[in-house]
Amino acid sequence: MNKERPLILVTNDDGITAKGIRSLIEVMKEFGEVFVVAPDKPQSGMGHAVTINGVLRLNEVHSIEGVRAWSCSGTPVDCVKLAIYSIMHRKPDLLVSGINHGSNSSINVIYSGTMSAAVEGAVENIPSIGFSLLDHDAEADFEAAKSVVRTLTANILKHGLNGGTCLNVNIPKIPKEEIKGIKICRQAKAFWEDAFEKRIDPSGKPYYWLTGEFNNSDKGEDTDEWALHNGYVSVVPVHYDLTAHHVMASLNTWDFESI
Amino acid sequence: MNKERPLILVTNDDGITAKGIRSLIEVMKEFGEVFVVAPDKPQSGMGHAVTINGVLRLNEVHSIEGVRAWSCSGTPVDCVKLAIYSIMHRKPDLLVSGINHGSNSSINVIYSGTMSAAVEGAVENIPSIGFSLLDHDAEADFEAAKSVVRTLTANILKHGLNGGTCLNVNIPKIPKEEIKGIKICRQAKAFWEDAFEKRIDPSGKPYYWLTGEFNNSDKGEDTDEWALHNGYVSVVPVHYDLTAHHVMASLNTWDFESI
Repeated sequence: MNKERPLILVTNDDGITAKGIRSLIEVMKEFGEVFVVAPDKPQSGMGHAVTINGVLRLNEVHSIEGVRAWSCSGTPVDCVKLAIYSIMHRKPDLLVSGINHGSNSSINVIYSGTMSAAVEGAVENIPSIGFSLLDHDAEADFEAAKSVVRTLTANILKHGLNGGTCLNVNIPKIPKEEIKGIKICRQAKAFWEDAFEKRIDPSGKPYYWLTGEFNNSDKGEDTDEWALHNGYVSVVPVHYDLTAHHVMASLNTWDFESI
Repeated sequence: MNKERPLILVTNDDGITAKGIRSLIEVMKEFGEVFVVAPDKPQSGMGHAVTINGVLRLNEVHSIEGVRAWSCSGTPVDCVKLAIYSIMHRKPDLLVSGINHGSNSSINVIYSGTMSAAVEGAVENIPSIGFSLLDHDAEADFEAAKSVVRTLTANILKHGLNGGTCLNVNIPKIPKEEIKGIKICRQAKAFWEDAFEKRIDPSGKPYYWLTGEFNNSDKGEDTDEWALHNGYVSVVPVHYDLTAHHVMASLNTWDFESI
């Protein structure tokens, strides 16, 4: 770190008016100069979507918690790209996304707009963290989460983070004094059992709502799910090299002569 | 494989009317019973987006290449979920996505709707492949690509695929006789240098188009980018465990006492 105050980009996927981003901004102001660029509407479940076939709008809004803030018509990943290339004109020293209202543990990482913003930070070689609290309530209590954010932010600014990785931090919905600690974990092999609820609209046509149940059959005690169920904050280092190196050898036995 | 004809789900991200999906369906009919569920409009760049805050529409359309087909108002991942849970009512034996008009090599895998559909197949434990041709033209020539699709489909139906992985197949834009072969590769460390073009709308307000240049500084000869530039079809095995196992040890040296 240089001696100047770090430049920090804050974004999220619940939208610029969410309580969670306000809590995150409050903590970030203690550490550096803060810019906020966040979606103008909820963008949960947007994954790593990026707007390539349409245009983006960007509006500077009234300052939030005393810092400059822009709302963007696009996805969380669009927010990160616009922030870096159209507003800040240099890469920030830290990117934080959240605090998400709801879990982004295990398989949720691939659907999560919060985490995709952090992954985009990693792609840009910026130390990046996505924070999520296991509480969907719009008025959730972020006090314990703020303490976790403070600790992790101090660490990432001190130690940096290996290029190409970011952190997926999930915080259990328990009072601060009951949090047992912070655990470095792997992503649990836990999944959604999807279902759709079919309804009929007033004109007689069907439409569908995605529903489903979360199932964890991964009994490992080194997973994010285990940590969260046992009173710990989970920290999973995440990278964007999706290569499944462990199956390359078996693929090399396939027969490609016929092409 | 059981003795019955395999049940095959076909989807894409360019939309149900694209030439690429029609070429894919033509080949799949040689191998099994085919269902098509694809977006009703282009969904390129949608990544792993899933519709959780809105409803989905699903319409059976006129058969394509003689097989039953549905158009869906959602993302490629929505299409996969709806196909399995609301149309087919069982998991298919094979999921294929594409043939995409344009590359999904290297970092493009995380932005790609085509590949996210294949990853969703892997999450559902279905052998899955995303196919892409390095030609954005709506009238691109898919003849060489169809031959590649045939070879890989025969192999995946014979060998299966390790649970939790799918294949990212990219095909160079060259005549079939110039294709040197099929190479198992890792995802290149290549990235977009983003830029935004700012324009002013008729009412005087600014809007932004994402532009940018693709840069590959990864000189490895085991990458998808190397293969494609040297006349090979690239096959990268892809998984959804994003855990960066190699940085866990260094994170365990961080100081978490203060929480």
